[in-house]
Amino acid sequence: MSSVSQVYIAIIGVGGVGKCFLSQLQSLATRKPSPKLTLAYIATSRKALYNDDYSAVEVNGVTDALSASSKAPLALPKVVEYLADAPAKVILVDNTSSQDVAELYPLAISRGISIVTPNKKAFSGSYKLWDDIFKAASTSGAKVYHESSVGAGLPVISTLKDLVDTGDKVTKIEGVFSGTMSFLFNSFAPTSGRGGKWSDEVKKAQALGYTEPDPRDDLNGLDVARKLTILARLAGIPVESPEAFPVQSLIPKELESCATGDEFLQKLPEFDNQMEEVKAEAEKAGKVVRFVGSIDVATKSVKVGLEKFDASHPIAALKGSDNIINFYTERYGSNPLIVQGAGAGGDVTAMGVTADLIKVLSQIA
Amino acid sequence: MSSVSQVYIAIIGVGGVGKCFLSQLQSLATRKPSPKLTLAYIATSRKALYNDDYSAVEVNGVTDALSASSKAPLALPKVVEYLADAPAKVILVDNTSSQDVAELYPLAISRGISIVTPNKKAFSGSYKLWDDIFKAASTSGAKVYHESSVGAGLPVISTLKDLVDTGDKVTKIEGVFSGTMSFLFNSFAPTSGRGGKWSDEVKKAQALGYTEPDPRDDLNGLDVARKLTILARLAGIPVESPEAFPVQSLIPKELESCATGDEFLQKLPEFDNQMEEVKAEAEKAGKVVRFVGSIDVATKSVKVGLEKFDASHPIAALKGSDNIINFYTERYGSNPLIVQGAGAGGDVTAMGVTADLIKVLSQIA
Repeated sequence: MSSVSQVYIAIIGVGGVGKCFLSQLQSLATRKPSPKLTLAYIATSRKALYNDDYSAVEVNGVTDALSASSKAPLALPKVVEYLADAPAKVILVDNTSSQDVAELYPLAISRGISIVTPNKKAFSGSYKLWDDIFKAASTSGAKVYHESSVGAGLPVISTLKDLVDTGDKVTKIEGVFSGTMSFLFNSFAPTSGRGGKWSDEVKKAQALGYTEPDPRDDLNGLDVARKLTILARLAGIPVESPEAFPVQSLIPKELESCATGDEFLQKLPEFDNQMEEVKAEAEKAGKVVRFVGSIDVATKSVKVGLEKFDASHPIAALKGSDNIINFYTERYGSNPLIVQGAGAGGDVTAMGVTADLIKVLSQIA
Repeated sequence: MSSVSQVYIAIIGVGGVGKCFLSQLQSLATRKPSPKLTLAYIATSRKALYNDDYSAVEVNGVTDALSASSKAPLALPKVVEYLADAPAKVILVDNTSSQDVAELYPLAISRGISIVTPNKKAFSGSYKLWDDIFKAASTSGAKVYHESSVGAGLPVISTLKDLVDTGDKVTKIEGVFSGTMSFLFNSFAPTSGRGGKWSDEVKKAQALGYTEPDPRDDLNGLDVARKLTILARLAGIPVESPEAFPVQSLIPKELESCATGDEFLQKLPEFDNQMEEVKAEAEKAGKVVRFVGSIDVATKSVKVGLEKFDASHPIAALKGSDNIINFYTERYGSNPLIVQGAGAGGDVTAMGVTADLIKVLSQIA
């Protein structure tokens, strides 16, 4: 075995994805030959574990130890200071969806700290933040990997990067980028059979845990817009923000002002006829309706919203809450390169994070 | 920009894939920041270009220079000697499909030379060769990447490695791994319409350049068996060789002894009724027939041959000469992670090689 140098790892966020990541990290550490990883810092929004001399925090049983800890998390700029002073290279794993943590990246990266994260905020916020991050990385040599920011563990970002880096011309990217939207439309407008009422499907999706606690956070299309922003930028389009292109919201105007998600769900049936019309119009054309995001690279146009597809189209034939991403490129010609599968969930999101961690380790260790 | 150290590259093979790779390599070199790559050796089976002092061979116009060269290629062990003595790290790009070059890998790797290749031979030959290669790599630290050995540039091997490395349990891999077989069955047994006569479809595929010069080299199933051998080994099954599991050949026994591919094609119509029966039997069950490879990890069973699928199954719905690979895993549950698209052709095969080269560079430069 070639010699592997010591690497410190810091983790912020121990929620659903964070817990799955910790379990994958543990099994990584038990494998031979195992990377020489030392957990130097771990924090939730309220508690933290770390040692001033950078001695290892034990990964085994860390969530219990964290609950019992009397240490508060360091202020974010202090986290960077603490990590930058570590006696070896550092990887910061951001398992939050926090804008504040995202805004820390340029500073961290400029101090040589590599970033691995499923957090969409840093890559789909202002173009300036994106630019600051990658400029800092090209100066300091620190690595930035965020596979799980689109499609969870599915090989979406790595595939797009490979296409671009090897000189292919991506012409169009089109797909279903939300597990929630996938589930809703596969049930509401199936390729065979009638499908349920729109408001019933939304309630069912919420009951099954497929939506955010307030389903409007999925129905407004912003989550998909964020993912499209990331892919468009990787394809070379300097999209200013997720508000810079048309995004169709599925929240009826009249319900935007509902005080709670419950009130929204209660009133949603009054608007079922609107969605029925959309479905009927698609059926008249022999098609089904789906909520998709698309990027046309030549015209630099990005959009998110309802589109109609033939029942035989891969986007129409999607199942359950799967994502599908179609890359149309010069090399691949008329048939796109397709990646498909679960695009949400703790385990598969953490898998993207862990795989990224392994890639960074292979480059800096 | 962080400092990038010098890396030497050697290329063996300048055929269809090799030419596309050279063109991608050229555009790589013109990009900023460009890797400090020096072409130190390039050879076909009859000619070579290299300088005893390792000074750069010009990539621009290299195929013409190669034709005009009066230098013969070095004997393969001499190539390793020459490269191992280079004053910096070396990546050997094997763009051949040669068994002889493949057998050179353990020696090259043990001398610290990284390998990037679409050549299936090294990874699908004897298990000993596979084992020698990866043992040498873990000792010397040299890298071995071979994405294009399965599905060309499609992210197949990288995805399987990520699943395994992050601790997912792959339960089954199933797919269409041959562009030729894909084209033949999508035309012979389409999901709608009748499809043509088997022998006519084989002739058409040959005329379109979708088969090897002698179509029996595709119909014997060995190409698919080689790819399955590679994936099975990556999934942890130590398959001894592509002959170690059942592979259904589509060459009628009576035609195995034909002297030429032309004689074979001439006599093939006499056996059309056999394939018609297979198609009719599938149709009776409401299905279509496809030539697939599958790996059942729990039972360690690998097989290649004809299977029946519902018309709505992604394997049945494949188009043109596309490949499709379904990864069933514990984390992904009942819906597999799917990768689909062109799995053959110079450009997309070279893309996998170039992407691998970039990955190795990021680790050793």
